[in-house]
Amino acid sequence: MAQQHLDPTDPTAGAVTGEALAGYLRAQATEFLRALRLHRETGGTAGGAEGSVDAVRALRRSARRISGSLHTFRPLLDTGWSEEIRPELAWLSGTLGLEHAYEARLERLLLALHRLSGSTTVPAQAVGAAVGGGGTGRAAPAPPKAAAPNGNLTVGAAKAGALLDRQLTLARTRAHSTGLQALGSARFHAVADKVALLASEVPLTPAARTTDPRPLAAAAEERLTAAIAALPLVTAGHPYNAEALVHGLSPDPSPHPQDGPWHQVRLLLRLHRYAREVLLGPEVPVDLRLLTAGQALDRHRDASEAAAAAAQAARTPRIAPATAYALGVLHADQRHEVEAARFAFQQCWQKRTVTTP
Amino acid sequence: MAQQHLDPTDPTAGAVTGEALAGYLRAQATEFLRALRLHRETGGTAGGAEGSVDAVRALRRSARRISGSLHTFRPLLDTGWSEEIRPELAWLSGTLGLEHAYEARLERLLLALHRLSGSTTVPAQAVGAAVGGGGTGRAAPAPPKAAAPNGNLTVGAAKAGALLDRQLTLARTRAHSTGLQALGSARFHAVADKVALLASEVPLTPAARTTDPRPLAAAAEERLTAAIAALPLVTAGHPYNAEALVHGLSPDPSPHPQDGPWHQVRLLLRLHRYAREVLLGPEVPVDLRLLTAGQALDRHRDASEAAAAAAQAARTPRIAPATAYALGVLHADQRHEVEAARFAFQQCWQKRTVTTP
Repeated sequence: MAQQHLDPTDPTAGAVTGEALAGYLRAQATEFLRALRLHRETGGTAGGAEGSVDAVRALRRSARRISGSLHTFRPLLDTGWSEEIRPELAWLSGTLGLEHAYEARLERLLLALHRLSGSTTVPAQAVGAAVGGGGTGRAAPAPPKAAAPNGNLTVGAAKAGALLDRQLTLARTRAHSTGLQALGSARFHAVADKVALLASEVPLTPAARTTDPRPLAAAAEERLTAAIAALPLVTAGHPYNAEALVHGLSPDPSPHPQDGPWHQVRLLLRLHRYAREVLLGPEVPVDLRLLTAGQALDRHRDASEAAAAAAQAARTPRIAPATAYALGVLHADQRHEVEAARFAFQQCWQKRTVTTP
Repeated sequence: MAQQHLDPTDPTAGAVTGEALAGYLRAQATEFLRALRLHRETGGTAGGAEGSVDAVRALRRSARRISGSLHTFRPLLDTGWSEEIRPELAWLSGTLGLEHAYEARLERLLLALHRLSGSTTVPAQAVGAAVGGGGTGRAAPAPPKAAAPNGNLTVGAAKAGALLDRQLTLARTRAHSTGLQALGSARFHAVADKVALLASEVPLTPAARTTDPRPLAAAAEERLTAAIAALPLVTAGHPYNAEALVHGLSPDPSPHPQDGPWHQVRLLLRLHRYAREVLLGPEVPVDLRLLTAGQALDRHRDASEAAAAAAQAARTPRIAPATAYALGVLHADQRHEVEAARFAFQQCWQKRTVTTP
């Protein structure tokens, strides 16, 4: 793993070339293979072991980094190979991410229901249902336990919680099966074989070994900066602008039209972070601004999807008006979270804490 | 009207005494009688004339000021007289305020429904219903007209709007009748007679003519400052704290337990403003901070009551789930407004723009 420690601002450092990218890709491919081994050792197909969840997360983590770097540094790599493997890595990380997404969504919604009910404690079985029903057995992030379960929940909120639990647990169970099927498929084995090759041999173009990759990284950062500049940051920087609640009255689970540009910035921020890792090596200093901005955008995405799940649940036929009312409050609460996340992003983005490369 | 122009910070000004209070009360009593005459001239009992609405507002305005000054400067006034007239003035201004409150509440909720539906225009007949159905004929505050009425409203939002329109128009019509009855009652005539006496003769205590009223005004300001200090201003100063949504899941129209202290501050702010008027005379310089803070607290009260009205409507038996869902979103939106108003209050209260006396 000839990972180079490069500081592009250090004039005494050797020239930065495509070798930096090759080193990064080899390291990530090795991470991928290590995660895959861990997944098999922890009884992947049986499901449920904690190590398996960690392994799946590590697989997704390296798949995202390889795929992102292939995108940013496209001109330095063999085009045919790169265009073949990228969609496969995207399919893999998307498929493997669904189970955790449903689990986190249910947990977020049940916690919100309890917060909105004025209860500071969370019934253990409610959160337990969010994390114990689909076979991963992953421990919940230690929510406070309630002395009297469901003590403060209204009937409508309790019914709304049960409905969401049923719907999202079903979705999660399906995602779990789909993930296991994917990991056992010929399609996956083809990806794994390609990544195994990548761990020893990166298909750089002939020119890449002497090409400076920094302009490509700078272009990725510019795409991020331009996308952020196009966001309605003035609105987001104004608390309580109520923009995000617009379209909230229809229990319409389709993506909120205003959220798209923010989701896009989230992806561009990731690409920028990975490009920094390529240039600066594994000991890249943490850029607190990038970290905080990324967390705000994750929270934005999670709240946006949770709001859509509440709206979706409200379309269930024959639910009681009290259930629908609670889902309406819950939807609005999550759209409120969307706005709060935009505000947090805007707040942290305005201060340049660490100079980016 | 020997209203004195007093500047307590001006050492060349004459001594401030109870005469300042007497002048203020005589002036307010005269305003009250003028409004009453206007009300009778514009055909009060027939209802509906715009002049009548203005007259009722002016009646309430002076009744509040007389009542508030009697409270703050209690020790300077004949106790028996003061304790007799104050509850009657409070009854009067409360009774006369209800019709406008229901009208404004419906208008606020219908505007919110349209905003939440993503429509930037408001169907004329929806707002028309809010202002034309109860007999006052007061002009709406020029909302934008819609080309295609109800164009963007979902079925649930439209039904929720119709339900609120029905319930609040009924409440407003009843309040209108109650107001007319009150103005024709013996109880009202007794108050009016007392105010007529006040316009010529203020029952000051013998000592009041040589007593400085400023310590009593300072005490009123201290009660305000203490009440504000007891508010959770740190929470209110943090945008998107979601505190106000707590208890939102139960369609419970009872007063929100967290709102009380804010409503109390609103009343204390009024008393402070009236005490300033007593000391500084009718040409009291506008304190922008007090004005803005008062507007934020009015908005807080209005949103709090509108949220309760949405919750109340959600308890109507046999409504459709889509209607209940829309009312849940609407409730959460208005609780969001409550938080935004607290935030605005906190923001403006932190900056001392004008030194208060």
